[in-house]
Order: sequence, then C-alpha cells, then structure tokens
Amino acid sequence: MSEQLAFIGLGIMGGPMAGHLLASGHSLVVHTRTKARAEELLRRGARWAASPSEAAREAQVVFTCLPDTPDVEKVVVGNDGVIAAARPGLVVVDHSTISPKATRRMDQELSAKGARLIDAPVSGGDTGAKNATLSIMVGGDQAAFDRVRPLLAHTGKTITYCGSSGSGQLTKLVNQVLVSVTNLAVCEALAFAQASGLDPQRTLAAVSGGAAGSWQLSNLGPKMIAGDFRPGFMIRLQQKDLRLALDAAREAGLDLAALNLVHRLFDEAIREGRASEGTQALFPVVKLTSATARPQG
Amino acid sequence: MSEQLAFIGLGIMGGPMAGHLLASGHSLVVHTRTKARAEELLRRGARWAASPSEAAREAQVVFTCLPDTPDVEKVVVGNDGVIAAARPGLVVVDHSTISPKATRRMDQELSAKGARLIDAPVSGGDTGAKNATLSIMVGGDQAAFDRVRPLLAHTGKTITYCGSSGSGQLTKLVNQVLVSVTNLAVCEALAFAQASGLDPQRTLAAVSGGAAGSWQLSNLGPKMIAGDFRPGFMIRLQQKDLRLALDAAREAGLDLAALNLVHRLFDEAIREGRASEGTQALFPVVKLTSATARPQG
Repeated sequence: MSEQLAFIGLGIMGGPMAGHLLASGHSLVVHTRTKARAEELLRRGARWAASPSEAAREAQVVFTCLPDTPDVEKVVVGNDGVIAAARPGLVVVDHSTISPKATRRMDQELSAKGARLIDAPVSGGDTGAKNATLSIMVGGDQAAFDRVRPLLAHTGKTITYCGSSGSGQLTKLVNQVLVSVTNLAVCEALAFAQASGLDPQRTLAAVSGGAAGSWQLSNLGPKMIAGDFRPGFMIRLQQKDLRLALDAAREAGLDLAALNLVHRLFDEAIREGRASEGTQALFPVVKLTSATARPQG
Repeated sequence: MSEQLAFIGLGIMGGPMAGHLLASGHSLVVHTRTKARAEELLRRGARWAASPSEAAREAQVVFTCLPDTPDVEKVVVGNDGVIAAARPGLVVVDHSTISPKATRRMDQELSAKGARLIDAPVSGGDTGAKNATLSIMVGGDQAAFDRVRPLLAHTGKTITYCGSSGSGQLTKLVNQVLVSVTNLAVCEALAFAQASGLDPQRTLAAVSGGAAGSWQLSNLGPKMIAGDFRPGFMIRLQQKDLRLALDAAREAGLDLAALNLVHRLFDEAIREGRASEGTQALFPVVKLTSATARPQG
C-alpha cells in the first residue's frame, strides 16, 4: 500500500533512509535545512516542502532524523513545526538520538491533538543506513508503532519495541554506554600490549575469540593498531550521546563512574582536535593520559 | 610418541588438564599440595611424586598449574623445586597466570642449567579445561615451544605463540583487562537500563547483536539480570589477575584509569563477601556504588 510520507532531515543517515522509503513505492515529501541535500531525492520523484508543518500537512507519517534535542524540538513542536499540522492519526517517527525526557514531552504535546510521536533511534551507522540494515529501537504508543512498523522494515533489519515513550531513546543510550566503555576497554588493553612490547596484531588474534571478545575489539582494534582514525562513528556524535546518557542516568539516580571516565577522555580527544575522527581515536588519547611520568621497573 | 610427563598442581584447571595428558597415552607423574586431589589420576595409572624435584627427575616435560606467583616460584625455583632436577632439554610449561617479570626470572634461572620455562597461561575456565578447548597464550624460547606444542594440543584448542619469555603472561593480562573493563561496561549499562525502568531482557535483545555486543554482554548479562552469581570465574581470581595487570602496566609506564576503577570495584565486592561469586556479581556492586544520594528528575 502506497502511503503519503514526509522525511525531515536528510543528513548522512536521513538521506539514505528517505531514499529507501521512496524506492519502496511510497509518496514522499521532504524538508531539510540545506535544500541541496534534497536534490537527488527530488530528481527521483520526492516533492519539496518549505517547512516542517507543510511537510506534515501532506503526510500520514512524518519521519525526522536530526542531530540533537533542540533540532527535533524546533521541527516537531516549534513555530511552523509538525505540531501545526497535527491531527488524529498523524504519527511522527523520530530516528534522531535525543533526550528521552524531551521525547516524552513532545509525545504528550502531540497526543493532545490526537497525533503521536514514536521514538525510533537507530544504530548501525551510515553503512546500515545505506544497506537498510539498521537496528531500530522503538518507544511509544504500541498502536502507533504497529501502524508504522511495515514502514520501518524498509530501513531496519532488527526492529525492537522497547516500551512506552522514551524507551527507544533510553535503549539507544544503554547501547552507547556499552559501545563507549567497551571501546575504552579495548584502548587500555592495546595500550598495555604495545607498551609491554607485545606484537599488537598477535595479541588481538590471541584474545579476540574468547571471553575478552567484543564488536569493538574486532572492528576498532585493528584500526587503532594501524593508526586509522577515519570516522565510522565520529567522536563528537558519540560525545553528544554520552552527554544524553549521563543526564538520563542521573535522572534515574545513577552516577556511572566508567561512563564519566570515557566522557572525560572524549572531551580530551575533542580538545586535541579529534572531534571528527572515529571513536577509535580514543586510543592515542588513552595512551597519552595513561602515561606515567617515569616508567618503573 | 609416549613421553614422560609431570604435572604439578591438580586444582579445578590442572586436574582435568593432567587427565587429558594421561588419556593421550603419556606416562604421567603427579604432585599436588593435597594428595587426595590426585587419587583419581593415580587410579588411572599416574604415579605419585613426593616433591616437585622428584616429579621433575622422572619427566622430560613438567607442567605446573598453580594459584599465584609465589606458588610457582616455590615449585620451580624453591627448595626441592623443579630446578633441583633441571638439566639440558627439560622444559617446564607453566599454565598458571602469574607475574611476567617473575616468569622471565625463572626462565633465566632454568636456562643456566640448560632447561627452559615456557609461560602458557590459559583462558576458557573449568569448562575449557574439562573439554580440552582452552586458549593457551605462550611465551618463551621458540624451540622449547616447538618441542612441547604437540602436548599443548591435548588441552588447548587455540594455541598462540606470543613471543619471548613473559609474553604469554602479558597477553593473558591484556585479556583480563578486556574481560574486566568490558564486564564493567555491561554492569553500568544494565544498571542504567534497570534504573530507567526498561525491561532488561528486551534491552539485552535489542543491543547484543550490534556494535555494543560482547562475550561479556551475551554470557554474563542474562546472569546479572537473573541475579545468578554462581561462579564461572571467581571474583577473587579475577582480582588477583587485575593486580598482576596493574603492576605490569605500571612497569610498562602506564596507569590505566578504567582498570584501576574496576579493581577498586572488585575490592568493594570482596568487602561485601562476594569473593567466591562469579565476576557477574560486580553488577550489584556497581548499582550500589553508582546510586546517587537523591535521584534527580
């Protein structure tokens, strides 16, 4: 069944995702801050909307994929935002990673007009977006989720319903805690291996298959050793997510020591000009900050 | 080819390993602190030695699998130790996890008599020992390693030569840094999930398959959620290895912040009476130590 869809935010993630929806035979209206980013989609048959509210007026489901909480708030509940066109049955699917608290607030505002916001942050990076193999973590009204689930299948391979509004965002933040602290484990272990004179490649081979194994070790370890800091996932984006995670954890009554540590180390990485490098560029930062003034022994 | 072998230290790991060597048709002499532990092997045809030197006198290759550095030093270079029977061609294979520095020292002492010490710490736990599927990380003289490699194949599935004397121990410690800091990542992430009201099982399912995935998450995560703290690997043994890792890292000029953190948390776990629980019992400790006085929000 062809649907009237809108997609707002055509960045590295949103662009390919919108493309998959269009390719699946749906009618698509798009809006993004930099119109040039929409050109390919417009050539392929998408229509342009001058504002989020205009996009929402023409659509049954509105997708958003934006950098941070204020961007989503502006687009969804701001002046000339989606909310201006909110009506019973409209569903907003937010693929951004943003504050769970702000998510719940926006869902409530939309609910007052009979519309709903589904939080649906993704993991899998630009490769996952291009290949439609993203993991999508969904929170919000179950009926609204059931309504849009077939659409999510065009971009996601694993779609998990996590619970009420904000649960998708919280699950994504749990994911980022795992990703970043496991990355730190890899950095410290390889720094130790190198400083001890071990062959890092041989060490990786020896430990990757057992209880020490992780996606981070297998995928980022070789890049760290090779000094390849090209971004899979950029440090500044990771750091934005860790800020959200620290805030959400504190709201839940937890001050997480390892998460705080990795957040401080990413701050240091950004000070060193590594904001646009991949998260594996935490490795040189760990080596530097761990070095004792005077090696003993 | 049947060989004359000795095995010293018949604990949870050493017992099954010695059994595999015996079952492979080799002639085995055994020694251990508590003779009762040797009974099954003696019934199966192993002979008893009254001391490490006596065991070494009757063997071409001596295996040791002991709790800590002082135990290995006593057995290998102590009074009535293996060194009393050291002669050209004798190879000692140490399966214990101990200090890399002490390992190099003992290898040097044995070398003076024409014998060698190969460090060959294992990972894979008691299950790996029982099923002969251990990972063995080997350091030491390459010729001595080549000499004993076919014997290691009776207990190990993955055998990696890591470099000169001590390199096997260092690689094992790198492994333990990964294992323990990744475990901490899992603890903080699941503590955050629970405190935020997420369904922990659903959260696990959503995040295990991607960039957040690890052996620790898939294997210890479900136990943490279930409150099952029965030991796979005991906290007090992990903590002994982390002490070795911290020392070795400092000798290499590194003070590793996350490793220090997890070491402090295991200390706290031991103070709480959890020394003989599995490493997944770090979870309640992380929940307790992370709790802020007054939840915000």
